[in-house]
Amino acid sequence: MALVNEHFLKLPGSYLFSDIAKKVNTFKVTHPGTNLIRLGIGDVTRPLAPACIEAMHRAVDEMSHAETFHGYGPEQGYDFLIEAILKNDFTPRGIALSPSEIFINDGAKSDTGYIGEILRWDNSMGVTDPIYPVYIDSNVMCGRAGDLGPDGKWSDVTYLPCTAENNFIPQLPDRRVDLIYLCYPNNPTGTTLTKSELKKWVYYALANDTVILFDAAYEAYIREDNVPHSIYEIKGAKRCAIEFRSFSKTAGFTGVRCGYTVVPKELTAATLDSDERVPLNRLWNRRQCTKFNGTSYITQRGAEAIYTPEGKAQVKATIDYYMENARIMREGLSAAGFKVYGGVNAPYIWMKTPDGIDSWRFFDQLLYEVNVVGTPGVEFGPSGEGYLRLTAFGQRKDCEAAMARIEKWA
Amino acid sequence: MALVNEHFLKLPGSYLFSDIAKKVNTFKVTHPGTNLIRLGIGDVTRPLAPACIEAMHRAVDEMSHAETFHGYGPEQGYDFLIEAILKNDFTPRGIALSPSEIFINDGAKSDTGYIGEILRWDNSMGVTDPIYPVYIDSNVMCGRAGDLGPDGKWSDVTYLPCTAENNFIPQLPDRRVDLIYLCYPNNPTGTTLTKSELKKWVYYALANDTVILFDAAYEAYIREDNVPHSIYEIKGAKRCAIEFRSFSKTAGFTGVRCGYTVVPKELTAATLDSDERVPLNRLWNRRQCTKFNGTSYITQRGAEAIYTPEGKAQVKATIDYYMENARIMREGLSAAGFKVYGGVNAPYIWMKTPDGIDSWRFFDQLLYEVNVVGTPGVEFGPSGEGYLRLTAFGQRKDCEAAMARIEKWA
Repeated sequence: MALVNEHFLKLPGSYLFSDIAKKVNTFKVTHPGTNLIRLGIGDVTRPLAPACIEAMHRAVDEMSHAETFHGYGPEQGYDFLIEAILKNDFTPRGIALSPSEIFINDGAKSDTGYIGEILRWDNSMGVTDPIYPVYIDSNVMCGRAGDLGPDGKWSDVTYLPCTAENNFIPQLPDRRVDLIYLCYPNNPTGTTLTKSELKKWVYYALANDTVILFDAAYEAYIREDNVPHSIYEIKGAKRCAIEFRSFSKTAGFTGVRCGYTVVPKELTAATLDSDERVPLNRLWNRRQCTKFNGTSYITQRGAEAIYTPEGKAQVKATIDYYMENARIMREGLSAAGFKVYGGVNAPYIWMKTPDGIDSWRFFDQLLYEVNVVGTPGVEFGPSGEGYLRLTAFGQRKDCEAAMARIEKWA
Repeated sequence: MALVNEHFLKLPGSYLFSDIAKKVNTFKVTHPGTNLIRLGIGDVTRPLAPACIEAMHRAVDEMSHAETFHGYGPEQGYDFLIEAILKNDFTPRGIALSPSEIFINDGAKSDTGYIGEILRWDNSMGVTDPIYPVYIDSNVMCGRAGDLGPDGKWSDVTYLPCTAENNFIPQLPDRRVDLIYLCYPNNPTGTTLTKSELKKWVYYALANDTVILFDAAYEAYIREDNVPHSIYEIKGAKRCAIEFRSFSKTAGFTGVRCGYTVVPKELTAATLDSDERVPLNRLWNRRQCTKFNGTSYITQRGAEAIYTPEGKAQVKATIDYYMENARIMREGLSAAGFKVYGGVNAPYIWMKTPDGIDSWRFFDQLLYEVNVVGTPGVEFGPSGEGYLRLTAFGQRKDCEAAMARIEKWA
């Protein structure tokens, strides 16, 4: 008889944002006509840059003529997009990568979820806590995370707490781990690591033969000079790190679906049976060729346009808009007496709940008393208890209205 | 130290079509100026239907205004596309499915590769042979296929040969297996099963608690009445089968990336530790919500347009074009004295190599002597030895020229 993968059965019933959606729907049904402001899920609201729109129209037109039609593209992505990425995201920062180290995908969620496939299921893993749930959930699914304990922690995961107490700077693990997920600028806390802080992680990884899975999806929001945009700004990182990038937040591609993964050729991992070191680039390439058929040509042309002079200016204007939201929210919440973190180099505001109440209770208070939807911090991990995440991706007027309501209420 | 997934190391170095591309490139470098006709990889050449083009232009425009912008969509796909699928692909055939049984994806390759994740890695599996390489390769990657033997067979895979000797109708396995991959109309042989033949598989699966993974990517090419378009035309199939559909070949979406997977709610599998049966729909939904972020909105609007009256007529005209290619190739090759199969309800022609020579030798002969690129049958599995696949997805003039060359040469 066919057996299910029993690791799936260990997972809580639904994905984080489905639970919130249900709560919000219940509220809407019981409170018809209420003007709800959603600052919960990290989804963008501004339209795509005109440069991307024009590029996608052109690409759609190309698909309408046999002479310019595009069928299967390279599983790794088109050269035109890879070249634009190298030239704009890495060369100016002094990072030399080859085209075959870049893999275009349909968004960073996919590859952060899939990357574990090329590594043994029983590698040990560490995550900063709180964290984007996909890192842990995808590891639960293959058995790597172990079992869920009553404290909300998975038995085989090393948690590295990031709270106000340590200024959201995780300590190096007190044991060695094989894989470490880092996300900077951080989702959900909106905090960052300086270059010297990130260096410690690269040195740890090199010393311990650890692979760092570095999620830089929010890189475009960095404003301060001492915050690295790529882990490869640190010498040696190409021997220990895979980096994930996304156009979702950079350029409003949450509904268009495109990002990329960097797997340097210098990065190798060990085998059980021999002394051979295996390049992860080769394994990831094999994985992509077998299970992925490339990202839409139209989408890739849209992404390429982000790197044109017009595209860059338009995308920057949108990011500035969201970061102005972040400033308004930071200042508004501070003025209302809340402790807030993040929002300087990231589109997320991480609020401490007042009087030590728990995340879900504060979520409910905001929902029912001021009709503002956030995301309970505890849903991002045990160290998120006592916090709530708000996002700066809303419309300006909604941010302002939410702050006015909260200031009046607090 | 981080360890690689050792199962990846068992795989031959590259994906099938990369090997062919290398051979073809070598030929091109050594024979510049030769007019090569490519009937190898199963990629379409006709432009997208105007209805799809118009729909995608409209969707791109929607993305350019905040009021009509679409961010994250449902991981399962938009209702508008799911409703169109149910209404057109299933209801007219008497198949009742609910919207939550349909999962829109970025193409059938992805989901046929991923589906094994929700099932235990040590389930036993069977495949018809020859077959689309993704089924086996994706199972090798998780350890389910075992080790590759000198005969080209994986130790833990039950092969069900389909050759001219059995008229390409696979026998039921002589042992029970937990999972069976079936692809009809078949890639690569272009052959089909009648409804009564397919019934035997459903009955086998129900009797043995087997899950059938049914790939119907070529369904739109069926011309004969007694060939089922969906496995759910067979009573009981909802309790034992997952079906994969694709818009790649139906509507030229190989470069646009969209398909869907049907996971009926009645379909359950067993657990090791309890008597509980678990619905695979729930597990697949959890998998999709964790590792996938939905298909591009623009793409889904394009796919929806396939189901409009104009879209249907336009798509049908393209399929007719390819099937006329298939007829020309079947007749041309037969006239030249070759034994050919398929091409009646599928866009693939499966040629027996002359005088029992092997697949690669015949591939080389066609490449070097008539400058036509096919795909060596043995690359689809051991029972493909002695065959070669040609596809009907080329331009008409190329099909005609290829036949003229082969008729002259044979």
